[in-house]
Amino acid sequence: MNLPLILITNDDGIHAPGLRHLIKLMNTIGKVVVVAPDSPQSAQSHAITINKPFRCKKVKIDNGKQLEFSCSGTPVDCIKLALSKILDRKPDLCVSGINHGSNASINVIYSGTMGAAIEASIHNIPSIGFSLLDHDMNAAFSHTDNYILSIANKLLSSKLNRCLNVNFPKYNLESDIKGIKVAHQSKGKWIEEFDERLDPSGNKYFWLTGKFINEDESEQADQNILDKNFVSIVPIRHDLTYFDQINDIENIFNE
Amino acid sequence: MNLPLILITNDDGIHAPGLRHLIKLMNTIGKVVVVAPDSPQSAQSHAITINKPFRCKKVKIDNGKQLEFSCSGTPVDCIKLALSKILDRKPDLCVSGINHGSNASINVIYSGTMGAAIEASIHNIPSIGFSLLDHDMNAAFSHTDNYILSIANKLLSSKLNRCLNVNFPKYNLESDIKGIKVAHQSKGKWIEEFDERLDPSGNKYFWLTGKFINEDESEQADQNILDKNFVSIVPIRHDLTYFDQINDIENIFNE
Repeated sequence: MNLPLILITNDDGIHAPGLRHLIKLMNTIGKVVVVAPDSPQSAQSHAITINKPFRCKKVKIDNGKQLEFSCSGTPVDCIKLALSKILDRKPDLCVSGINHGSNASINVIYSGTMGAAIEASIHNIPSIGFSLLDHDMNAAFSHTDNYILSIANKLLSSKLNRCLNVNFPKYNLESDIKGIKVAHQSKGKWIEEFDERLDPSGNKYFWLTGKFINEDESEQADQNILDKNFVSIVPIRHDLTYFDQINDIENIFNE
Repeated sequence: MNLPLILITNDDGIHAPGLRHLIKLMNTIGKVVVVAPDSPQSAQSHAITINKPFRCKKVKIDNGKQLEFSCSGTPVDCIKLALSKILDRKPDLCVSGINHGSNASINVIYSGTMGAAIEASIHNIPSIGFSLLDHDMNAAFSHTDNYILSIANKLLSSKLNRCLNVNFPKYNLESDIKGIKVAHQSKGKWIEEFDERLDPSGNKYFWLTGKFINEDESEQADQNILDKNFVSIVPIRHDLTYFDQINDIENIFNE
């Protein structure tokens, strides 16, 4: 049997423990090619590099059997370059992550991890973004292993072309993950709290910080599922049309 | 009567002719505050600046009555900073553009212009991204004036909280725009063609280029409407959940 070809990327950079963990898992089920950013690209969303050139080189980071390429661009650039210049055929699956931090609720729209998974789906490649609700670079990932392998295998066997946003609860010594639930994106937003400072020359600068507000009470909302210690899976759409509003908008503009 | 408060940004930067044109138009219908990037931020999508600080200063660029702020961040950063630190109340409308280049079809997902409009909609502010199918920095914009004013006024009067992706055909001396049509995002994608070069030291680098493929034959697809010389308006959704796939996904994962 031919092993499936699996393309891996992330937004925390090619040395991030979450990516290294995901590579080890994927090596057990497929032929793995990694094309990942050479530096952190968190919150790069679906950005691409068009005003400057970028670089990509083959690298060897550990003893795994994967092929690896380190790229100066964004996560979406990595997918585009992999498909156009690195891989000799379309991959069977693209996985992105494991992200150090949540991509539940509105976070999906800012996420470079999910930007890459969505880009793969635009090219009709089944894709999954995996994220852990723990920002710590030394976070424990082992509680996600069986779920990640099962989700990747099931999507591969289904032969369906889907883009999934998968989030995992933080490791909890006292309680195991309770299972998987299919979810929708929680209604929510970040309320910004800019940290205003003065540089040594007395000029003002800002750091973006903020507080996440979950505005969704539905049991099927990903944030609420995660709060109950389940894994959340949200299918993601790259057609941004708000179809339910088309009639409304026609009433306003086609008078 | 109190004038509506209108927040303006773009992704081509605060000096771009498209933005300057939009400011002049909005000055005739509202109290305008501009918070725009100090440099080009095309294709920055919904990216935000979290790994470095950013700066923002009050500027005076022309003799218009608008207030203006130039910011080192992305278009989405500009919206966040405007809402959190610059404006003393929530704006009645946010407009972004006029973008030099199309944001029809899949372009919407890469667009910094639309990233800003979508960010405003996350904060429940009616918003419109305006784009012209002409990349030229000296492009003619005057054929869009009446449409832009009418669309902005109608959205304001409707009191509806909508996010609109509005694209205009390129100026054509021989044929006027035929009218407005409400549309959905055309199915389509970019096929990358990386331009591979060697730097003076003999090291490889890439420029991202590509060709857009319209895969949609529907008369209601924005790309096809534009090709017939109509203005396209697509309502945009920031909840990325693919609701129609939830049952499918449940069948795969909840066995």
